[in-house]
Amino acid sequence: MSVSKTAVADGDKGRKEAADDQSEGSVLQLGELSGLLGYSLKRAQLKIFEDFLRCVAPLQLTPAQFSVLLLLEKNPGRNQTEIANTLGILRPNFVAMLDGLESRDLCTRMRSANDRRSHVLMLTDKGRAVLARAKRLVATKHEARLNELLGPANRAALLAMLTRIATEF
Amino acid sequence: MSVSKTAVADGDKGRKEAADDQSEGSVLQLGELSGLLGYSLKRAQLKIFEDFLRCVAPLQLTPAQFSVLLLLEKNPGRNQTEIANTLGILRPNFVAMLDGLESRDLCTRMRSANDRRSHVLMLTDKGRAVLARAKRLVATKHEARLNELLGPANRAALLAMLTRIATEF
Repeated sequence: MSVSKTAVADGDKGRKEAADDQSEGSVLQLGELSGLLGYSLKRAQLKIFEDFLRCVAPLQLTPAQFSVLLLLEKNPGRNQTEIANTLGILRPNFVAMLDGLESRDLCTRMRSANDRRSHVLMLTDKGRAVLARAKRLVATKHEARLNELLGPANRAALLAMLTRIATEF
Repeated sequence: MSVSKTAVADGDKGRKEAADDQSEGSVLQLGELSGLLGYSLKRAQLKIFEDFLRCVAPLQLTPAQFSVLLLLEKNPGRNQTEIANTLGILRPNFVAMLDGLESRDLCTRMRSANDRRSHVLMLTDKGRAVLARAKRLVATKHEARLNELLGPANRAALLAMLTRIATEF
């Protein structure tokens, strides 16, 4: 381990300030971090996921589970691999998630008629009802607040740029 | 488990198409998913993290490790809790990450002069050198490509909106 003179000098300063109770508890400087798109994306994404969980708490759905239910509604009878690949979820994680959704009677796996090794997925009646309630909560609480914060035009511009990054970067 | 008539009908259709090899392998419809900010944020974030890992591969740094090194450079001599809290990293994960960085001689923990129970963190000489190389790779490969995709004005607008969500939502 070696510490440069600059680091020692800065460190001494840091420790001195801490000893003086000046920097203790004070906000750290983000510096270049605040200009990095990846860092800001991650922080915004965590904030949005937290709010999603709060808004959909009565239904106990995570953002990923909500995505799966939405995709099953739009694409009934597709197999596990197709759903997992579309959402970019790794197979073991996806199997565990499906186990959870199936045990709650929200979706069901059936053997494919044309390929006995593959399973097709479908929403149950309960899954359809829970999804409908979740959509309302997401629209009226979560997305409505985001709309309020950004304004509809900015929200649309943000969505377009994110989609561009996701598909073209 | 109960499946609605609609679900069965759709499911039958899905299976029939699969049997006919019409939908097999075809792209799924995202439907409402593509209009959800949280979903687009997550997909964009994953894409950006993948590219970051590729660009910084020679140095074997993850985005989170890079953030820690940047923050240590800007705020030498602060303690573990302050760094972890600022980055929103959970304590056990942060301790594991520091173990890794310290074993690679990139940073060092020292007992605080004013509070013997707390550790202050500092970059080592090697940490400072690796960080300087990482910054160059991020700027010239990763951020430069993002700039090219979005254009500087859009990039700035995107960053401002993400920061707003992270701090105000």
